[in-house]
Amino acid sequence: MTGRTVRAERAGVTRERILAAAEQLFAEHGVLAVSNRQVSEAAGQGNNAAVGYHFGTKTHLVRAIARKHAEPIERIRERMVAELGDSADVRDWVACMVRPVTEHLADLGSPTWYARFVAQVMTDPALRAIMDDETRSSASLRHTVEGFNRCLPELPAEVRAERGDMARQLIVHTCADRERALAEGAPTPRATWHDAATGLIDALVGMWLAPVTREP
Amino acid sequence: MTGRTVRAERAGVTRERILAAAEQLFAEHGVLAVSNRQVSEAAGQGNNAAVGYHFGTKTHLVRAIARKHAEPIERIRERMVAELGDSADVRDWVACMVRPVTEHLADLGSPTWYARFVAQVMTDPALRAIMDDETRSSASLRHTVEGFNRCLPELPAEVRAERGDMARQLIVHTCADRERALAEGAPTPRATWHDAATGLIDALVGMWLAPVTREP
Repeated sequence: MTGRTVRAERAGVTRERILAAAEQLFAEHGVLAVSNRQVSEAAGQGNNAAVGYHFGTKTHLVRAIARKHAEPIERIRERMVAELGDSADVRDWVACMVRPVTEHLADLGSPTWYARFVAQVMTDPALRAIMDDETRSSASLRHTVEGFNRCLPELPAEVRAERGDMARQLIVHTCADRERALAEGAPTPRATWHDAATGLIDALVGMWLAPVTREP
Repeated sequence: MTGRTVRAERAGVTRERILAAAEQLFAEHGVLAVSNRQVSEAAGQGNNAAVGYHFGTKTHLVRAIARKHAEPIERIRERMVAELGDSADVRDWVACMVRPVTEHLADLGSPTWYARFVAQVMTDPALRAIMDDETRSSASLRHTVEGFNRCLPELPAEVRAERGDMARQLIVHTCADRERALAEGAPTPRATWHDAATGLIDALVGMWLAPVTREP
């Protein structure tokens, strides 16, 4: 190997270490409560400026963590969407929203921090925009939302927006709660990520199909 | 007034100022990201140890903020529960979970920080226990959950637990999102807290009544 290749490989290893350390710290303490210096230290970097050198600002670091997970989630959702036929119903599309996330979490093995990381990021208005960008850039999710919307054409626009926000909150925080319970060895209502997704899909389908009260 | 009364009144004013400053800072930045010193400064206290003097630890401060809101919410829920007859259905009981919170937020006028404060507290495992304590100490909420459970006797225990967690997450984060949008002048799906509660109740009733998928 050339000297340049060795240096590039070392940088790659360092970047992965920083991403893993940052994800864990952000998940457990919140993004704002953790400094780049703490991340560098937790990643075993003698140089406390390692985060700045490898990622730039904390916003860039958060985006890099989000993107690392977005890719495998996207691949799972592409496969699921491709398997759906023309008769796909509300439940099929809701499954395409939920299962790529839970399947990815199951694939990571235990413990994971990603679900709590997302919950922390979503609670911060400035950082949430990063997740929104990542969400918008997912072709498979756009496809899913379009297919879903075709199944419920009569839903009023404001209720669609409202329930869309609720669905996102439910997926994010239900996964974060389950991940935290697993990490702490606390009891969970369901044995596996697959079964937890089934419970979440049941609830979301019920929510989306609920009658809309019209008040005077 | 005696000197003692004047001192007690002044301490009461200082406590209220600290509670208000802490609630706002915690809501906007997260509880762990804000120091007691920053709270003291934002409350206009020359003495940076004012939080410690008046409240003790940060945990005590968080509990005091939670309790300040728990009382008016409890009064609204007591009234709502008292108005329900023997024929109360799932929707009536779900309304007793949601409307006391949204009515309290509407009563506070704009801007409010309480909903975002709760969302931040709920994202932290150690602090969440404080909210759980407050929730458990509410007689009207216990009454509501009992009445609700009587309406859905056939729901499997693990699904009841799972949907209870989901309902709580939905109420907390939907209120926090709406409060943030109002504070930022961003558009909201519904015009008023009352209408937002109606949308939330529709969604929660749909979620609770959703069929349960039994997997082999």
